[in-house]
Amino acid sequence: PNELNANEKAAVRDIITDEPKAVQGSRQFHPEDTIIRTKHSVIGGDNFALMAGPCSVESQEHVLKMAAVAKASGATVLRGGAFKPRTSPYSFQGLGEDGLKFLRKAADEYNMDVLTEVMDDEHVKMVAKYTDIFQIGARNMQNFSLLKAVGKTNIPVMLKRGMSATVDDILNASEYIAAGGNHNIMITERGIRTFDNKYTRNTMDVGVVPVLQKLTHYPVIIDPSHAAGHTEFVTPLALAGTAAGASGLVVEIHDDPAHAFSDGAQALKPNEYKKMAEKALAIRDLMTGMDNQQAEAGR
Amino acid sequence: PNELNANEKAAVRDIITDEPKAVQGSRQFHPEDTIIRTKHSVIGGDNFALMAGPCSVESQEHVLKMAAVAKASGATVLRGGAFKPRTSPYSFQGLGEDGLKFLRKAADEYNMDVLTEVMDDEHVKMVAKYTDIFQIGARNMQNFSLLKAVGKTNIPVMLKRGMSATVDDILNASEYIAAGGNHNIMITERGIRTFDNKYTRNTMDVGVVPVLQKLTHYPVIIDPSHAAGHTEFVTPLALAGTAAGASGLVVEIHDDPAHAFSDGAQALKPNEYKKMAEKALAIRDLMTGMDNQQAEAGR
Amino acid sequence: PNELNANEKAAVRDIITDEPKAVQGSRQFHPEDTIIRTKHSVIGGDNFALMAGPCSVESQEHVLKMAAVAKASGATVLRGGAFKPRTSPYSFQGLGEDGLKFLRKAADEYNMDVLTEVMDDEHVKMVAKYTDIFQIGARNMQNFSLLKAVGKTNIPVMLKRGMSATVDDILNASEYIAAGGNHNIMITERGIRTFDNKYTRNTMDVGVVPVLQKLTHYPVIIDPSHAAGHTEFVTPLALAGTAAGASGLVVEIHDDPAHAFSDGAQALKPNEYKKMAEKALAIRDLMTGMDNQQAEAGR
Amino acid sequence: PNELNANEKAAVRDIITDEPKAVQGSRQFHPEDTIIRTKHSVIGGDNFALMAGPCSVESQEHVLKMAAVAKASGATVLRGGAFKPRTSPYSFQGLGEDGLKFLRKAADEYNMDVLTEVMDDEHVKMVAKYTDIFQIGARNMQNFSLLKAVGKTNIPVMLKRGMSATVDDILNASEYIAAGGNHNIMITERGIRTFDNKYTRNTMDVGVVPVLQKLTHYPVIIDPSHAAGHTEFVTPLALAGTAAGASGLVVEIHDDPAHAFSDGAQALKPNEYKKMAEKALAIRDLMTGMDNQQAEAGR
Repeated sequence: PNELNANEKAAVRDIITDEPKAVQGSRQFHPEDTIIRTKHSVIGGDNFALMAGPCSVESQEHVLKMAAVAKASGATVLRGGAFKPRTSPYSFQGLGEDGLKFLRKAADEYNMDVLTEVMDDEHVKMVAKYTDIFQIGARNMQNFSLLKAVGKTNIPVMLKRGMSATVDDILNASEYIAAGGNHNIMITERGIRTFDNKYTRNTMDVGVVPVLQKLTHYPVIIDPSHAAGHTEFVTPLALAGTAAGASGLVVEIHDDPAHAFSDGAQALKPNEYKKMAEKALAIRDLMTGMDNQQAEAGR
Repeated sequence: PNELNANEKAAVRDIITDEPKAVQGSRQFHPEDTIIRTKHSVIGGDNFALMAGPCSVESQEHVLKMAAVAKASGATVLRGGAFKPRTSPYSFQGLGEDGLKFLRKAADEYNMDVLTEVMDDEHVKMVAKYTDIFQIGARNMQNFSLLKAVGKTNIPVMLKRGMSATVDDILNASEYIAAGGNHNIMITERGIRTFDNKYTRNTMDVGVVPVLQKLTHYPVIIDPSHAAGHTEFVTPLALAGTAAGASGLVVEIHDDPAHAFSDGAQALKPNEYKKMAEKALAIRDLMTGMDNQQAEAGR
Repeated sequence: PNELNANEKAAVRDIITDEPKAVQGSRQFHPEDTIIRTKHSVIGGDNFALMAGPCSVESQEHVLKMAAVAKASGATVLRGGAFKPRTSPYSFQGLGEDGLKFLRKAADEYNMDVLTEVMDDEHVKMVAKYTDIFQIGARNMQNFSLLKAVGKTNIPVMLKRGMSATVDDILNASEYIAAGGNHNIMITERGIRTFDNKYTRNTMDVGVVPVLQKLTHYPVIIDPSHAAGHTEFVTPLALAGTAAGASGLVVEIHDDPAHAFSDGAQALKPNEYKKMAEKALAIRDLMTGMDNQQAEAGR
Repeated sequence: PNELNANEKAAVRDIITDEPKAVQGSRQFHPEDTIIRTKHSVIGGDNFALMAGPCSVESQEHVLKMAAVAKASGATVLRGGAFKPRTSPYSFQGLGEDGLKFLRKAADEYNMDVLTEVMDDEHVKMVAKYTDIFQIGARNMQNFSLLKAVGKTNIPVMLKRGMSATVDDILNASEYIAAGGNHNIMITERGIRTFDNKYTRNTMDVGVVPVLQKLTHYPVIIDPSHAAGHTEFVTPLALAGTAAGASGLVVEIHDDPAHAFSDGAQALKPNEYKKMAEKALAIRDLMTGMDNQQAEAGR
């Protein structure tokens, strides 16, 4: 009596498996790598992009300083939050539009692109005036109204994986953007929620890099800062993501982490960032060289 | 050299543990149960509320029929989606404002309250014209702009737990609503994401009922439909939640699940709902009776 | 070049999905409920079994006292650990064979069955001299040597779900016992590991009760103590499991939890256990009565 | 009335947090890296070890062939299973002692060390006759009897992380070995269980490499094969682990994966293994070189 008929079974299957229907994002639909070109950066394909900056924009002076640090180590994208999605309403919520102005000015000063989070569809137009790349944060990965809104712009979008988003969920979320006509999408792994977060804030799912690269043509970026949650684990995670083949790294930096407005404990200091960037670039070069060599030898 | 100073350690602790800062939602701040009174329902405290309806509003005729079914089994709240947060952009997205009109009319016809999801802050005012209770869906639990927007209204809010939201995350999210002045909040467990979803869509965390009741004064509701994902497991989960002490149940029903516009496989048919409601009410009565008895005996 | 052939694809599927091959445990193979009959208990089918006792056997005197408490509230099985699988090697490891003697004597004194954990295949014969039911602990759920060893005896086995065991894993583990010829198996849910264990030790997956009951004929038991990890949440979890249809409850009790040798914080005190048992039995009776009524009405 | 006293609170804390009590394994107790020296390998410290072989020993001829392949790419340890912990009792369970003989002969032929799993304490003595390193599998990570048994030998132990073992659980499990006097322990990450296993068999927790290296002096090894579950993702995971600083890699290889007795879909073919090994060694060299350089520069 409790048995399902064929239609019901199909419906169950559909509900439970949530098959990805991300047509436009799939390799079958578009086999070549998507390459995103901003004024100062090329993201995807054989390129490797460094993106760095403070978690929160704190002041004009500070973000200028951080831009100098980032640029000096090879970063072409300046990240910084002006609208902060904080777990608690009583935490610092960001400088708002002022922060965007400071960020824009700092990026321009150092010939960098701006990457900043947009948290709601009402703000898309305003943030668009200042940014070169929209960030959709992990908590908003399935905020479909917001995805649709940025999908209607022609500004590249960095879509961060939700804390418990499956690979299919990510692809479907990206399809909300693509369905609006915007195909300049990059997907960022920033750690997922698992049963152990005593020593790291999240668990970085480095395997998602080759998995996504197989399924989709969008560039895959690693955010080791939120995965680690703790300065001393950021560099190993950054290098792991690089060795796994990621197209870039987005990293939080701060010259005085103990007094950062947010997430100080996971920020790399300038000299730590420099060392990390050198190593990441060296691994990337090594891998590219060996791929070419092994391909040669295979002929 | 890699050692943290005291400030850094405190920051790490803060980042990793995300202590709840949900002051207004806590029992310390407000020891008595919050009791939410709508036109036709009393939710919280010693009361037990039944809420039911179709996943999607499909037509005026259909939602009227479902309202009749729900009401006949004791439900006082009619749920139904007009804006649907679907994983894929190519799935049915809801009837929009027309759906809200159908829902309102059906609820009025049967002297019931309307419960419906609002998906973005732009729609809050419009949805407010039709609903008695806002639903914030699991995917939007940390859409802070939306939380702030409903926090500025005086309409009760049902906040659904995110798929990987911790107890602290839920409390902090509810605080975004409370911080705006709206304290008519209920929290709904609808299953979390774990390592096993082969047979049930999610894992219902029934333990969160007594945990939340200890920490917060807001009513805790169980949604067994999304937890189960499959009709035959909905009733056991509903009864489990009731026995654990939940203040109510929100359940998806459909007279023809195989042709439902969405989530058909987890909808209870009218006679299944009737049986479930009878049992849930009986368990609730039994528990209340025994609590009183045991309290008497304890004097 | 990286494409898999058909055989490889089948192998991948097999590895990743781990389909249950638990033939003898399946409902298809054996549609009727397995009913386990020990000297003092009947477990499975329409029966409901209460099992209780201290986490560790502490002394002859103490376990006698606990047996009296358990029996007085309707328990027919006395649980108690003599070999303890402690996370740390420096924690109390149990009284060993002496503990088993104390436990046996206490059970006999009160006409109860003994349930106790066996931790390695070498001990199976020795423990068999004292126990009526073997417990296989969560950490040993996939200790296949141990499963095979108890499978060769004719003593009933309580198999506890591993902390991250899927439903298929449980069924396959039980098949290791059944394959040896021992079909007197009960499966116990004791909470799984998820992303949130701040307030409860584990997450009780109450949905596994109806899921297992659909797939297998073995009785399903709830252990609310390990799921909760904290006295005040044990009773709601026990009642939730009962309302979901479990065939019994195994609960840790202690008269002086603060001085228990192990797991004191999750032990119910005698009067707490009495109240819990009364409520669980009342819910079970209510459910059985209503099932019969609803079945009558359905004719 | 439900309030806990101080002792009870401490007990709760203890139960819920399971603080690691792994004294002998901690850096505080023993600050220098443990370096394990077998006949043909040096594991830990500045060394990097390659270990490879078939999942199951299939025949004398086949394991000889695989030893040749492994050795040719720089592996000094030959892995192979003779006792297989299979999820289902009806799957191939290994060749037993015959398999150990084949494995020993193959390793000797190519001047390699043997690494093989021991599944129960009864077999420890027998397996010890053939192996240079014991493997404790993920499912037995908390089989404390087995841990104690290998702890009483002087043969190095590779302890694989359980599917849902926390960092503290791993450390405590290793302490069961150390408490017996055996300090030649290496810890292996082989992927954990999370909410998404559609494309990879497990989620490789690469962050555990630097975390464990901070907490314990034991070498940390990466097993990318079980994490990936699929050939095409093995190499990226191996390289990620290497870049994160692991002390070695243990990888499954097979010349004809489609006909492997077990786990064929995750085995690298000889040429794939060769490329992987070259890249891993190159990354390791690069990292060591840059560490030295950056340290020089820092003086």
